[in-house]
Amino acid sequence: MHEFELINNFFSKLSSNNKSSLNLNDDVFYDKTKKLVVSVDTYVQGIHFIDFKKPDLIIKKVLRSSISDLICKGVQPKYYFISGSGNKKFFSVKNIKKIVKSLKEEQKKYSIYLSGGDTVSSKKLSFSITTIGFSNKIVFRNKAKINDDIYVTGNIGDAFIGLKILKKKLYLDKIMSEYFKEKYFKPDIYINITKKLLSFANTSIDISDGLIVDLEKLINKQKLSYKLYLKDIPVSKNLKRLIDDKRVKKISCISNGDDYQILFTANQSKSRIIKKISKSLGIKISKIGKICAPTQKSLLMDEKGQKTYLKNQGYFHRF
Amino acid sequence: MHEFELINNFFSKLSSNNKSSLNLNDDVFYDKTKKLVVSVDTYVQGIHFIDFKKPDLIIKKVLRSSISDLICKGVQPKYYFISGSGNKKFFSVKNIKKIVKSLKEEQKKYSIYLSGGDTVSSKKLSFSITTIGFSNKIVFRNKAKINDDIYVTGNIGDAFIGLKILKKKLYLDKIMSEYFKEKYFKPDIYINITKKLLSFANTSIDISDGLIVDLEKLINKQKLSYKLYLKDIPVSKNLKRLIDDKRVKKISCISNGDDYQILFTANQSKSRIIKKISKSLGIKISKIGKICAPTQKSLLMDEKGQKTYLKNQGYFHRF
Repeated sequence: MHEFELINNFFSKLSSNNKSSLNLNDDVFYDKTKKLVVSVDTYVQGIHFIDFKKPDLIIKKVLRSSISDLICKGVQPKYYFISGSGNKKFFSVKNIKKIVKSLKEEQKKYSIYLSGGDTVSSKKLSFSITTIGFSNKIVFRNKAKINDDIYVTGNIGDAFIGLKILKKKLYLDKIMSEYFKEKYFKPDIYINITKKLLSFANTSIDISDGLIVDLEKLINKQKLSYKLYLKDIPVSKNLKRLIDDKRVKKISCISNGDDYQILFTANQSKSRIIKKISKSLGIKISKIGKICAPTQKSLLMDEKGQKTYLKNQGYFHRF
Repeated sequence: MHEFELINNFFSKLSSNNKSSLNLNDDVFYDKTKKLVVSVDTYVQGIHFIDFKKPDLIIKKVLRSSISDLICKGVQPKYYFISGSGNKKFFSVKNIKKIVKSLKEEQKKYSIYLSGGDTVSSKKLSFSITTIGFSNKIVFRNKAKINDDIYVTGNIGDAFIGLKILKKKLYLDKIMSEYFKEKYFKPDIYINITKKLLSFANTSIDISDGLIVDLEKLINKQKLSYKLYLKDIPVSKNLKRLIDDKRVKKISCISNGDDYQILFTANQSKSRIIKKISKSLGIKISKIGKICAPTQKSLLMDEKGQKTYLKNQGYFHRF
């Protein structure tokens, strides 16, 4: 059973009495009265690409993925809790020193504090991370409006190439390999934009599963459609080089996950302020499409200007 | 490396800048300003006795173990988040229905709400549970005073017998087997006592690893000793029967975990009020010893009145 069905069919009933819950249907839990925002994420070896070899990088990856849930809602993360399970080899003194060093760097970068958790002995590696922040307001899912512009921060696709390299499905020279692997393990999370989001975004999500799948999730409870322009979907210079060299197709890079960029919609009138903030913060923010009426079909315009009808979410994932 | 060392040697450095943290050295994280109390626990198949066979009971066990962390600190749990990993068989529709039914019962019993979490596919079963509550005050660890009485709620040892039966290391008749297994999966958590604790307990912990190991943890940062009386350590009528029949020794039952009873100390002057509250709530609370000066050796008086010197924590666990 798909996680989505699980939540909708069964578990959502359990939170129905709980008025401050978001019905388990958003990136975070929000208690407005207490101004409390909570996110819980789990990463398991074999399902997620984590293994025992790079503890210093893996810990950054799971921590950034987790705080990204709050950041994309306009909430500064404050506390994090890690439950880690792994074998003796992973939790060796050498590895723990590496992990602690990594966490220290992340704490400084994002102003967050380790506040608890536990470690359990296990053959497989897994991490469960709880992140907590406080906010008077958050940007919810399912609040897009017709004619909203669709935006995305940073670049899309680098993490996917990194993962291909890590899985030995793509071979590049050392410099390029390092660049993409780094983007996989250390996605660019834009903490500076956090509070600003509240001033212009109608609705938002972070891209963990893929641009299009996550766009579908963003508006899944709304009767809306969208139009995306492949040419406007931002890629890094390095990825552009691979595309130009025909090593990869752009369309197969942009529909994968792990980029942890913020996908949001905003009223057209916000266009100027978004440009201004983008410039002042030095954060790339690209307009990639718009929200359309439910009577239209959702579509992606490819670079040749051809329409690709998007029938279902699964299809997107199999681009 | 022992989890305790891990926390003390390495991870505690990461929370040192965080004034509201309890230095990762208590059952919960407490942010006094925000009145926020958080506990995170992980349970892994093979390490903890959980398997795919009894999803309805396992979920109660892990949830109660988790909310027990807050209750023993005098804090009413409010929200819980579950991250579960398991295989397709475990997350079958039939099992999920059982899990949801169990969670519904627990929510009603303890006034808590499922507020988020995720499910991940994995060969081994594991759960990570985050529990959140709000409180102006909590009962901390390491606040025992010399001459404090030591108390424990409920009965000790039933869960250990239940685990022995589950592991097929002890065979009893059906009624007795069911009784003890039930105590293992559904420990008696006394939610009614929660707020009262704040009025009489100087320091507290829940017994997850064993009465004596947890007592050592409770006062580990303090230069204190203790004296416990084996005869005063409360056991159920059913366990007493097993002890009288010489099926098990009392001393080997009371030093194991999984009972989730509250272990606390209180000034001698609180003796009367504790008796009164015990009676009015219908919760057994037993005085089992006292806190002594650091110049004395910690000791356990056995039922024949003989002293047993307790040299180290590991020893207790191997009783």
